[in-house]
Amino acid sequence: MILGIVQTNPEFGNVDRNLKEIEELIGPREADLWIMPELATTGYELRGREESLELSEEVPNGKSSKWLHRLCKEKNFYAVMGLIERDGDQVYNGSIVMGPKGLIGRYRKIHLYDKENLRFDKGDIPFMVHDLGIARIGVMICFDWRFPEAMRTLCLRGAQIIAHPSNLVLPYGQAAMVTRCLENHVFAATANRVGTEARDGRTVSFTGRSVVIGTKGELLVSGALASADCMTVEIDPAKADDKAIHHYDDTFGSRRPEFYDKRLGLE
Amino acid sequence: MILGIVQTNPEFGNVDRNLKEIEELIGPREADLWIMPELATTGYELRGREESLELSEEVPNGKSSKWLHRLCKEKNFYAVMGLIERDGDQVYNGSIVMGPKGLIGRYRKIHLYDKENLRFDKGDIPFMVHDLGIARIGVMICFDWRFPEAMRTLCLRGAQIIAHPSNLVLPYGQAAMVTRCLENHVFAATANRVGTEARDGRTVSFTGRSVVIGTKGELLVSGALASADCMTVEIDPAKADDKAIHHYDDTFGSRRPEFYDKRLGLE
Repeated sequence: MILGIVQTNPEFGNVDRNLKEIEELIGPREADLWIMPELATTGYELRGREESLELSEEVPNGKSSKWLHRLCKEKNFYAVMGLIERDGDQVYNGSIVMGPKGLIGRYRKIHLYDKENLRFDKGDIPFMVHDLGIARIGVMICFDWRFPEAMRTLCLRGAQIIAHPSNLVLPYGQAAMVTRCLENHVFAATANRVGTEARDGRTVSFTGRSVVIGTKGELLVSGALASADCMTVEIDPAKADDKAIHHYDDTFGSRRPEFYDKRLGLE
Repeated sequence: MILGIVQTNPEFGNVDRNLKEIEELIGPREADLWIMPELATTGYELRGREESLELSEEVPNGKSSKWLHRLCKEKNFYAVMGLIERDGDQVYNGSIVMGPKGLIGRYRKIHLYDKENLRFDKGDIPFMVHDLGIARIGVMICFDWRFPEAMRTLCLRGAQIIAHPSNLVLPYGQAAMVTRCLENHVFAATANRVGTEARDGRTVSFTGRSVVIGTKGELLVSGALASADCMTVEIDPAKADDKAIHHYDDTFGSRRPEFYDKRLGLE
């Protein structure tokens, strides 16, 4: 299968323009699964919860969900895209999993970063794996990388590819994803954004260099450092099912949970 | 406090020579805590369990334990050193924690690597934190880095410094330790070895470049790539107690175990 990443440079609050940018970046390129950045429809630097609600959309009945469904149907692909999800009074830093037949799943960021804690409700649905037929995918968003339990949970639940919409501002994320893929023997696609947002005297710059990492920690493809980009790579998701490290060790089989602190997992 | 690493080039099976090498590498240098490599007394490429038993020692009554105690007492420091520990019929890839007053603790490698599974019994005592007065340390050995649960467990139990005796053969370990320190906001000292061992037609080369990493993932000091080395760095272990990432997030406090798979930790 072909896995693709769209690395955008969104304009804050301009949803129509940002959706158009994604479609133009993809252009005639073909992929079976496209990953877009975190908050790809709106941009990042929200003033607070009120502005999040203003720019939020229902899933799957909001404009961006419908737009993505249309694109998936026309071009016959699957996609994971970050947006602000509203559900009643609640508002989430969310991602939707879409396919030609419509909405497949949603994720609500579990580990909010910095002032996101003032802008969104904390994710309240479990880490889930979605079987697209072409691959089993798990979704986590940006700062979730910092907590190894997030990706471990998705991989223990069977994910072959981690879709990782991101708005990375610190330099660590891309390098850490190498460790994450190694320790779980899984593919990951970190779709990052570029650009700078200056609001209320606070300036935030995003680090680009989206990456697809292979099951052995190898860098399969990476994006531009400071401009919008689009890239694809062919992968075999089944490689993530073979967790053997070598004859005597296995990524999961060699784990010894009886020695791990019970505070690691409580669900 | 001063944290030091001794990076050795041991000669297989020659315990006297290998202990002497450690003492000579330290020379007049001063540190409060020295970390030595995995299997520092014997070398690595054991033919099987029988040879492990031959080269094993009791703790703390064996030669190497007594030698290390003498050194700790003479020079007034603490040390963590890898050796083959025998306990009755059992034989472990072990590490001892020694101080001026004698043995403080022991660790038996939980995640054995490759043919180590044929050479040693699996570690059977819990991950423990040892309060040395100057710092609280946790011990893990080499390949334990591959399993994030190991270091997470030590840090949840209060370790400020991870002592990490190693015989790294793959290129990943040192880079992964950056992620490990970041995700736990902890210091780590990976004491690696150099050199090549050729036995029974199998050749193994070790990657040197021992590292001390800080709580923010910063490289504090690193050793030579291909020769024996010795290095020290001043650190403040208390920095590892402040787990704040910034005002709204905390390395441990922002964890959300209710969403983590229960298979992560069962103890």
